[in-house]
Order: sequence, then structure tokens, then C-alpha cells
Amino acid sequence: MLDFSWLKLRKQENRKPAMSSSFTRLVRFLATDGRTYYGDAILPSGVTDLAKTKQARIIEGSIFGNYKITNKIVDIKRLLTPLALEDVRTVRCLGLNYEKHARESNLPLPEYPVLFYKPVTSLTGPFDPIPVHPQAQVGEGLDYEGEMVIVIGKPCSDVSEAEALDYILGYAVGNDVSHRDWQLKYGGGQWGIGKGFDGWGPFGPGIVSNKVIGNPQSLRISTKVNGKTVQDDSTDDMIFGIAKSIAFLSMGTTLLPGDVIFTGTPSGVGMGMSPQCWLKDGDVVEVSLENVGTVSNTVRFDKPTAKL
Amino acid sequence: MLDFSWLKLRKQENRKPAMSSSFTRLVRFLATDGRTYYGDAILPSGVTDLAKTKQARIIEGSIFGNYKITNKIVDIKRLLTPLALEDVRTVRCLGLNYEKHARESNLPLPEYPVLFYKPVTSLTGPFDPIPVHPQAQVGEGLDYEGEMVIVIGKPCSDVSEAEALDYILGYAVGNDVSHRDWQLKYGGGQWGIGKGFDGWGPFGPGIVSNKVIGNPQSLRISTKVNGKTVQDDSTDDMIFGIAKSIAFLSMGTTLLPGDVIFTGTPSGVGMGMSPQCWLKDGDVVEVSLENVGTVSNTVRFDKPTAKL
Repeated sequence: MLDFSWLKLRKQENRKPAMSSSFTRLVRFLATDGRTYYGDAILPSGVTDLAKTKQARIIEGSIFGNYKITNKIVDIKRLLTPLALEDVRTVRCLGLNYEKHARESNLPLPEYPVLFYKPVTSLTGPFDPIPVHPQAQVGEGLDYEGEMVIVIGKPCSDVSEAEALDYILGYAVGNDVSHRDWQLKYGGGQWGIGKGFDGWGPFGPGIVSNKVIGNPQSLRISTKVNGKTVQDDSTDDMIFGIAKSIAFLSMGTTLLPGDVIFTGTPSGVGMGMSPQCWLKDGDVVEVSLENVGTVSNTVRFDKPTAKL
Repeated sequence: MLDFSWLKLRKQENRKPAMSSSFTRLVRFLATDGRTYYGDAILPSGVTDLAKTKQARIIEGSIFGNYKITNKIVDIKRLLTPLALEDVRTVRCLGLNYEKHARESNLPLPEYPVLFYKPVTSLTGPFDPIPVHPQAQVGEGLDYEGEMVIVIGKPCSDVSEAEALDYILGYAVGNDVSHRDWQLKYGGGQWGIGKGFDGWGPFGPGIVSNKVIGNPQSLRISTKVNGKTVQDDSTDDMIFGIAKSIAFLSMGTTLLPGDVIFTGTPSGVGMGMSPQCWLKDGDVVEVSLENVGTVSNTVRFDKPTAKL
């Protein structure tokens, strides 16, 4: 039998939390006092981009269980990955989930959600550099994929579409950084290597709750490279919406608290341009999701080694 | 920056362990006293199959850090997944890593290791049933893949082939259960769905250390279905051996303690037979690896639901 004793514990914890104390916008950050905290962001009036958060109320306890939003307000020095890496379980990604992107990739529209994975070590913070290993500098195809990211908050399997959104901890925005040659030519048809390098999954700036997002299929999502808009679409163009995707992914498969799902990218990736256009050392990629905010990451080519 | 503070801690711990106290054959088990332990297996004289372990010395502390093999000997009631699921990070798998299997799959020999993933929830114990969700009972193609499994013991990235084996906690044997229709027809070309159902990665019976295994490329690996041998090969037929595979997988990618790697299956899967032969409800699949032991799992078709 699967040992789910630790999960049962979390499940029990999850029955209890008072909704009155649940977070609105979860951030994880280095504070000016030099310590790292989880907190509920305090946005300046009229601002919706979490990247502009300067202060937060400290959260004490387990994000996936019982926690308390305290009245202690601290100043943010730097936002970090919204979940500590030890709190992340499996990172799933959906491919070809926007119709125009599937067409620009010259791939057929999927009949079911296309599932692939990134390792947890690919996750990085909302303003961190994207390190590019020497072996990913060769050939062609370093590319961005701006995406809505969701985080699972409670264990679920075989969940119905109607109930699926109840299992979401919240929403973030991210970049499914990809190397097209490793993804499509050298991977034996599997996308694992070309998507999985350390730091190739920036996400954040924090995790915004259901109560802010409401309908996840009506949000503007856009990407800029060096200030120029290259992707600009709405999440209502997803082929498989969030509820349908969670129902499908949970088919005979237990989704766990701390599972992260990148939900696919709209059209406008560098691979789809004519001529194709690849990321270079020093390029700045910004991905924005309405009511969530912007992650901004600089491409950093690392030095060659004698490897491979 | 990636928050590796927890890793650094493990790294420091890893500098210290006295090799004299390192385990020979790690097992995790339910004891006759009703508690769950990690232990160092005590094999009866002349026996090498860990599945036949009846007693173990209790291990105290962190398997990936400082631990102590005590003199407390307890009786084993049932062997469990050799790692608690909360101790597992990422589960990687190699595809087409034996030449004859690549040919029987009608797929080209890979130029580089073919990487795909299973979620942590796919892992299950060495003698547990393999649950088959109703949606994996439809169509064709429920299949076994007997494989050598390795567990990473220390963080590493860009590791050389010469040093790669030093980062292995130990070796196990497992079954990369697969549904060929979901893997090859309905997955949009990605193997994620067809390999990732709950309980589709039995492994064990325990984790055998480097000092027992020595050269991992000279072990007999075999699979029986209902007592009939269907796979029988040597790990020296791997296209990419263990050291080369770890070097490749760690390219720009940090492998973490608790990462599990299924290293590919030899020829003889049901898909490669003529006529093709699929697993049915009640079938018993046994996978054996020399000097490690045997996992034995019964296929269990779960009841249909109204889902999807």
C-alpha cells in the first residue's frame, strides 16, 4: 500500500482551516531583517501586480495545513520562489494547450491534455536569472513560454470538473523555458531534457487565491522580450481549461499539496516566428498574468566546461 | 536564487558519515510490533534475495544524512517502498535503454538517453498490487517493464562518469508499468499519462549498496508473468550504462538525495510479442535483479466509475 500517513495528516489539517484566515496573495520572501518568511502580501492601493509588493503580514504554520496570518508586518527585500523547494512535490506541465500555439508548433491539436514534467530543481524565483548551461547554448532554440501556473492545495484524485477548482491553493505566472533542439531533436521524442535544466521554471511573484482570481479562464496573459510584446492572449483560449485539466490529470493519479502545474503557453514563442528568434545571453523575459503580476528574468549564459 | 539551504545542510551531513556504519541492504518495513522502520536487512546465510529478509537492524537518523545502524533487531512483517514517499524527490525514467527493446518497440536507437518522468505517487511497495484505473482498462496495452532502479544519495550536478557511482545511495529493482495506448496514442507523443497512474512503479525489495553491487553492468535482470519468464537479459546490454546516464542526467541539472531513476527495460515486453500480449486482472508480475532480489505484484483492475 502507498504510505499516505503523512497525507492523511494533511487531509485532516485541511478540514479545519477557517476560511476567514486564508491568505489572499501568498508570497515567500527575504525580509529586510535577513530572514525568509511566508506572508500575505499587502498591495498598495490600486496596484494588482504582486511584483510591486513591499510589505507582507507574516504567516505562521504550514501553508498546506493549519496556518495563521499574523498582524506582524515586515518589509520585503526580495521575493523568492512562492513555495520553498522542499514544499514542492511534482511539477507537471501541459503542452500545446492553446490552439494557435499548437498550430505555430506544426503539431496536431491534442485530443487529451499533453502531459510532461519538469524536475523540482527547475523552479526558480520571479526575478532570478535563467542560467543557461553550455550544452544548452549549442545548436538552436532557447525559447520562452509564458504560462499560467497553478498550485494544488489539497490531495485529490478522480476529481470532477465541477469540484476541481476547490483543490487549488492559488495561481501564479511562470516561464516554461525550453531548448527546442534538446526538446524536439535530441530527446528521442520526449521533452524532458529540453525543459528540465536548473532554473528553467521561474514562477511567482506569489500565489494568488481563488477569491481574487474567480474565473481562471478570463485573464490576459502576455510576454515581453527586452520590452517588446511577443505573446498576448487570454486564458479563455486554452484548449483544456483549468478545471478540465485537473480532472484529467487526477484520473487514477493522486495530486498532492505542493504539486505545481504549468498550464501551457499561448502563441508567440520564438520557434513560431518567421524567421525563428531565439533567446540570447542578457535578454530579459517578462511574463505577466492579469490580477497576479509579472515575473522578470534575465538570460545568463554560463561558462563553457569540458563536459560531454 | 534557488533556495538550497536544506540541501547544504544535507551536504554537510554527507561529509561526515563514517563508512563503517553505512548500510549494506536498506529496507523499510512494517515490523511485527506494528511500527514502521528503516533497517539494515539481515539475510539468511546463502540467500541474496532481499525479498526473503525476515529481520533487520533498526536504523536511526536520516538516510540521506547522519544515521546509525543500531543493534536492535526486529522481525519484519511486510516490506514497504524502500523510501518513504516524503523522502522521494523526482522520479526519472530512461526509455529505450536496451538495444533489443528499442528494436521491438519499432523505435530508433537513441543518440542520447531518453528521459521521461513518473510522479512520486506512482511508487509502491515490492509486494503491493498494481491498481488499474478503469480508464487504463480500456483499449489495449497494459504492459510490464522490469528495470534496475537506482537512488541518488547526495546532491550532484555536472558529475563526471568516473565519479557518478559515488552519488548513488544504492540499487533496487522495479516495474515501470505502462499502458501503451495512453503512452503512445493518446498522450500527444509524450509518455507521461501512460506511465504515471498511482501505484505504477513498484520497486524494492530494498536498496542494496555499492559495496554489494560493485559493477552495476554485469547483473542478470529477468521478469516472469504468472511464472513464465518473459524478460531475461544482463544489465551489460544497456545502451547508456549507469555512470554515463547519471553524468548525462546531471548536465546542468542538480540531482537530489531521494531522486529515483528507473534505468530502462530489456526486450521481452508484451508490446514486442507476436501476437502482442497484455496484462490482465489477477496476473502476477515478478521482476528480479541479481544480488538485489525480486518484486512481485498482482494486477488489480479497479471498478469502473462514471468518470470521463
